[in-house]
Amino acid sequence: MLLNALQDETLETLAARLFEDIRALSPDREGVNRPAFSETETRVLARLAEFAERCGLSVEEDAGRNLLFSLPEDADAQSWVLIGSHVDSVPMGGNFDGLAGVVAGLIVLIRAARGGHRFRRPVKCIAMRGEESAWFGACFLGSKMLTGRLPPDELTAPHRGDGRSLEAHLQTLGIDTAPVSAQQSTCDLARIETYLELHIEQGPLLVERGLPAAVVSGIRGNFRYPLIRCIGAAGHSGAVPRAYRHDPVLAFAELMHRLDTNWDHLLRTGRDLVLTSGIVGTEAESHAISRIPGELRFSLDIRSQDCGVLDEMRRYLHMQMEDIAKSRGVRFETGAELAVAPALMDRTVLAGLDAAMERTSGAAFTMASGGGHDAAIFAQAGIPSGMVFVRNRNGSHNPAEAMEIADFMVGTSILSTYLEAGE
Amino acid sequence: MLLNALQDETLETLAARLFEDIRALSPDREGVNRPAFSETETRVLARLAEFAERCGLSVEEDAGRNLLFSLPEDADAQSWVLIGSHVDSVPMGGNFDGLAGVVAGLIVLIRAARGGHRFRRPVKCIAMRGEESAWFGACFLGSKMLTGRLPPDELTAPHRGDGRSLEAHLQTLGIDTAPVSAQQSTCDLARIETYLELHIEQGPLLVERGLPAAVVSGIRGNFRYPLIRCIGAAGHSGAVPRAYRHDPVLAFAELMHRLDTNWDHLLRTGRDLVLTSGIVGTEAESHAISRIPGELRFSLDIRSQDCGVLDEMRRYLHMQMEDIAKSRGVRFETGAELAVAPALMDRTVLAGLDAAMERTSGAAFTMASGGGHDAAIFAQAGIPSGMVFVRNRNGSHNPAEAMEIADFMVGTSILSTYLEAGE
Repeated sequence: MLLNALQDETLETLAARLFEDIRALSPDREGVNRPAFSETETRVLARLAEFAERCGLSVEEDAGRNLLFSLPEDADAQSWVLIGSHVDSVPMGGNFDGLAGVVAGLIVLIRAARGGHRFRRPVKCIAMRGEESAWFGACFLGSKMLTGRLPPDELTAPHRGDGRSLEAHLQTLGIDTAPVSAQQSTCDLARIETYLELHIEQGPLLVERGLPAAVVSGIRGNFRYPLIRCIGAAGHSGAVPRAYRHDPVLAFAELMHRLDTNWDHLLRTGRDLVLTSGIVGTEAESHAISRIPGELRFSLDIRSQDCGVLDEMRRYLHMQMEDIAKSRGVRFETGAELAVAPALMDRTVLAGLDAAMERTSGAAFTMASGGGHDAAIFAQAGIPSGMVFVRNRNGSHNPAEAMEIADFMVGTSILSTYLEAGE
Repeated sequence: MLLNALQDETLETLAARLFEDIRALSPDREGVNRPAFSETETRVLARLAEFAERCGLSVEEDAGRNLLFSLPEDADAQSWVLIGSHVDSVPMGGNFDGLAGVVAGLIVLIRAARGGHRFRRPVKCIAMRGEESAWFGACFLGSKMLTGRLPPDELTAPHRGDGRSLEAHLQTLGIDTAPVSAQQSTCDLARIETYLELHIEQGPLLVERGLPAAVVSGIRGNFRYPLIRCIGAAGHSGAVPRAYRHDPVLAFAELMHRLDTNWDHLLRTGRDLVLTSGIVGTEAESHAISRIPGELRFSLDIRSQDCGVLDEMRRYLHMQMEDIAKSRGVRFETGAELAVAPALMDRTVLAGLDAAMERTSGAAFTMASGGGHDAAIFAQAGIPSGMVFVRNRNGSHNPAEAMEIADFMVGTSILSTYLEAGE
């Protein structure tokens, strides 16, 4: 009877109510809080299971205590297209980062169940745990476990709150960590034909372009320097002539200006790149208005879909640092570099999603993903993957995330159109 | 008899011993500590008086409890050339900043007394109190009181240590503060024909040029912005394309790069300028490697001997901020500007010191002073002023100040040569 009640709702109303239901389950002081591998996460998954069952879907739990949903007739399929995302959030996060991809998978299944549309191949929706790096320092924990790619140091990493290891948290949930530490996948990867994920866009491109959704061409890789020291020589701001200065602030300004100019050039020649220095500062103990600072510290985060562009930028960066160090008599100490390879989406999946978007919205629009997503992990595990972005204001990881349900339905339609047999 | 013992010492040995004597009187954890208008300062002045008397000089105290030294025959002169500096220091300061100028004045007098050289005009040496801003926030307090130019808010400014006002500290020393608050000079300015000051160089120019001393052409004025906010828009470091960024770090880098380029251009065309951003930082509460920061704060300190250059740079700065704000969609909020006018040294005095340096060292060398000095206050009060710099390593206001006595003697000789009648 509940099933019948839900049958009367439009898919849009169903989705909106499910989002609000989950939001109410996981409030924070502002926004939502769904820690990875927590009780709250388990409660959210239970609510999704209840919803899916009321909608007539099959529900199963995997070895990592993620949930899988499917049409009853596909529950025992030999292989399937996997569609989903994660349910955890950052603290004081928005409600849509992750959750939108899970709800999209459920709506795709419900539409098929309702409308009698046939999927070309069996489809399962996955609601994963543990994607956000806010909890154990590393990200994509759930999809890394699924694909047997969780590095040992991430399994022993301490929780930012209680200090207990990820392994201890997994064991508390009753998850067998033996295959995880042996880097064995916790599912049969060969049975996953394709991985699909819908996610809110974390940047402003779709808002600026006035488009409700986009197909994602690839997920940018990056190289990062969390802390570069530019070391010069302190001095009296009035008394040291320009020729005798070793000013780390002007050296930094020149470096950033050159990187910015080169970025502009690369974009004009069609290459993909973003570049950010998010942390910049002179030393609080010694800096003063009338003192040339002895040192400036800064971070660098450089991202591209294209390995070649990343390599080129890395070379350019080091060349410029060397050049400026020589001309200004300063020293750059970059510290350790962290790097993540780009993950290109599968060409055939991409073409299929583009065609689906064209049929749904009249024209395809393709863009890069700047943030990392579980889809990158599946792609790196050799599973053909694809993503759809939905327009969203104010970025993600904050309570001001603002996705319109109408846009979400456009993104969901692209996925349904792609998955359902063409008429 | 003491006088006779001192008569056997070279001037160089006398000076070196006097420096060490005063250093031992005013130790800090590192370096020296001679707070403005303190007991320590009074003790240092008493020691200088004792030394001067042993050398056969006259000693008098003025209304601000500064000391004046002269040859006995000049004690009652109608007017005189004043030569000196201040005896206070910053905490953990060096021994030479200020004190060198007082010792130089004493050595000039002793040389005249010993050698039978005649001064062209009567000379008095002044040992002033209270020049450093470390104690009451404002600087040149002693010379401002002498010239009747102490602003009312500086008289009521609290001491950084005990919180008591400058006025209370002056009264503790028995100084009548009525003329000070009425902005009346505490001496008859008309009787000061010229003011001369020797000071250690606070920058590296003389070390780099291999010169022991220089004549100062002028004291740079400045305009400063203690805190400029560059306000952009925060965002995900990977997800916001360049065209939609409002990155305050790249805006700052572009601004500093333009200022630096213009600085280089002005120097090449013979103008005097130094430019420093001593404090730079993103917000510690919210900055992150993977976040385009929403705001960057920085200070600016721009100095020149030339009012016209300062005005030109101010216009250039505001034009560039406006231009970058427009092109990058950021906002600069400069906050209050603080400005100090440049003080040019008197042309006739400058020419005389140049000639004296040429006679002493074979060639004159003239340079700007980047830091402010009491000489600027006397110059602004209309008294023809001149300065001599002495080579010094490691800047000033720190225990590592390193002036060689041999260099100090060169600077002192320039002053003696200037003051003594030409043969």
